[in-house]
Amino acid sequence: MQPGDHSYLINGRHESLITPFDRGLAYGDGVFRTLPVYAGQPHCWLRHYRHLEEDCNALGIVCPSAALLREDITKLVDEKEDAVVKIIITRGESERGYAVPPLAQPTRIVSKAALPRYPEKFFKEGVALHLCEIRLARQPRLAGIKHLNRLENVLARMEWVDPQIADGLLLDEDGMVIECCMSNLFVRYGNLLLTPDLSFCGVAGVTRERILELAGRMDFDTRICHLRLPDLLKAEELLICNSLYGAWQVRRLVDRVWPRSTLAARLRSLLREDDAPVA
Amino acid sequence: MQPGDHSYLINGRHESLITPFDRGLAYGDGVFRTLPVYAGQPHCWLRHYRHLEEDCNALGIVCPSAALLREDITKLVDEKEDAVVKIIITRGESERGYAVPPLAQPTRIVSKAALPRYPEKFFKEGVALHLCEIRLARQPRLAGIKHLNRLENVLARMEWVDPQIADGLLLDEDGMVIECCMSNLFVRYGNLLLTPDLSFCGVAGVTRERILELAGRMDFDTRICHLRLPDLLKAEELLICNSLYGAWQVRRLVDRVWPRSTLAARLRSLLREDDAPVA
Repeated sequence: MQPGDHSYLINGRHESLITPFDRGLAYGDGVFRTLPVYAGQPHCWLRHYRHLEEDCNALGIVCPSAALLREDITKLVDEKEDAVVKIIITRGESERGYAVPPLAQPTRIVSKAALPRYPEKFFKEGVALHLCEIRLARQPRLAGIKHLNRLENVLARMEWVDPQIADGLLLDEDGMVIECCMSNLFVRYGNLLLTPDLSFCGVAGVTRERILELAGRMDFDTRICHLRLPDLLKAEELLICNSLYGAWQVRRLVDRVWPRSTLAARLRSLLREDDAPVA
Repeated sequence: MQPGDHSYLINGRHESLITPFDRGLAYGDGVFRTLPVYAGQPHCWLRHYRHLEEDCNALGIVCPSAALLREDITKLVDEKEDAVVKIIITRGESERGYAVPPLAQPTRIVSKAALPRYPEKFFKEGVALHLCEIRLARQPRLAGIKHLNRLENVLARMEWVDPQIADGLLLDEDGMVIECCMSNLFVRYGNLLLTPDLSFCGVAGVTRERILELAGRMDFDTRICHLRLPDLLKAEELLICNSLYGAWQVRRLVDRVWPRSTLAARLRSLLREDDAPVA
C-alpha cells in the first residue's frame, strides 16, 4: 500500500502518476476487473480480457491490448507466485468538465495483492447472506458493466460488520433480485439453475458466465430471468460466485436455512480449471 | 496537467501521490465541489464548504476542516489571481474490497484551473439545451450529493458536440425533469420560480440554493416540486445555473423558443456578490 512498493504499474511504469485530472478519479470514468493469478498465470485470462474490452467499448474507452496488460501482470507477479490482480482502465486525463476529449489516452493501472483468505467454513459449510436495505438504481446504460461507479456497493457493504456474513444480497428499486455486493447469484429448482437478469443493473461477472456454460455440461437447464426475494426463499438451493472464491452455497438468508449440498464444491473444482490456453 | 506543475495539492503537499488503492479511484468513493476564486478569494467559501461537509457526512467520510482546505487554496492561488478550484475528498486508501476500513484517512485533493471562457453570447442572449436521451437512475441514498460516481453525466455529455449547445437537460427514468449535466434548473411561471425536487437523483448545487434565497428578496415565490418536460415547455421562462457562470436564460429547448428576458442577468449580478464573510 506504500507508493513505490512495486505492487502496481501505471501505464506499465512504477514511476507514473495518477493525477487529480484523471477521469477515473474525477468521475469514476473507467472500468475494472479482478482476477486470481495462480503460479504466475492469470486464471481465465482471455475471458477476463474480453469482458474488460467489452466494458471499455460500452463506455467508448479504447481498451489497451491484451498483450500489454499480460506484460504488466508478468512484471508484477513472479513465476511461482499466487496473487490477486486488479486491472483498472480509465478514460485518461482531461481538462475540468464532463466533455470527453477526442484524443483521450486511457490510463492503465495494474495492481496486485495477496489472495484473500476466506474462512474455511465458507467453503465447507456454506455462507450466510445479509439482505441489504439499499436498493440498486436501474440504469440500463450501465447495467452489466464493471465500471468504477461503485458507491452503491460501498454503502451496501457498510450495512454489516459480522465477519460470519459472507456477502449482502442486493435487490433493485422494484424489488428484483440482482446480485450480491461482490458476487453473482444462482438459484436452483431441481435441475433448473436460474440467475438474475442484469438488463437494468448489476455486474455481469466472468464466473457467472462460466457457471452458465458449465451447468449445461452438468445436465442442468439454465435460465436468465427476473427473480424476486420469495423466489429465492422457496428455492431448493442458492449459490453465490465470483472469480476469487469460485462458488459458495448459501445456507442462510432472512429466516430460511438450507441443508448442505455438494453443488458448490463440484462447481469450484470445475471453475478451478483454466478455460482457455493462456495468451 | 503535467504532474508536479503545482496546479494541485494532495493532502496539502505537491509531492503526495494518488495510488490505485485510493477508494476515490477504485469506487468513486468520495465527493467534490467546484468553485470560482476571484482575486485569490474563494467565492461563497463557507457555503461551498458546508455542502462539501454535508456530502461527506452523508457517505460517512470525515471531512477535513474548512481551515485546512482554505490554506490549500491560499497555497495554490495567488493573491490577485482568478481561477477555478476543485476540491475532491475521497474516503482514502484501503485494501481491495468494498469494506470500509474503520480508520480510513480521507484523501484531500485541491486543484486549480483557469476560469472557463464561455461564449459571450450565452450571457447576452441565452443558451440552447440538448434534451439528453440517457435518463438518470433513481437512487435516493445518493440523491443531492455531489459524489464521484458521475458516469451518467459523462455519457450524457457525450450526446452532443455542437459548441452552440450550452448544456443537456436530464430527466429521470420516470420522465421527471431533474437538472442539466453541469447545471441546476429553474422554471418561471409569472412570479413563481420552480426548481426540480432532487429526492431521487441530481446534485443540489450551491447556486440553486442561493437562487432559492435570492428569489425571495426579488419578490418571487419559490417552490421545489416535481416537473415534467411539458411543464418546462409551457413555462414563461427557463434558467440554468451553476457556480461558475452564475445563471443563463434558456432560449431554446426541443421545439420551444423563448423571448429574451433580463432575469438571468439580474440573478448573475446578485450571485456575483459574496454571501458571507470570508473565513
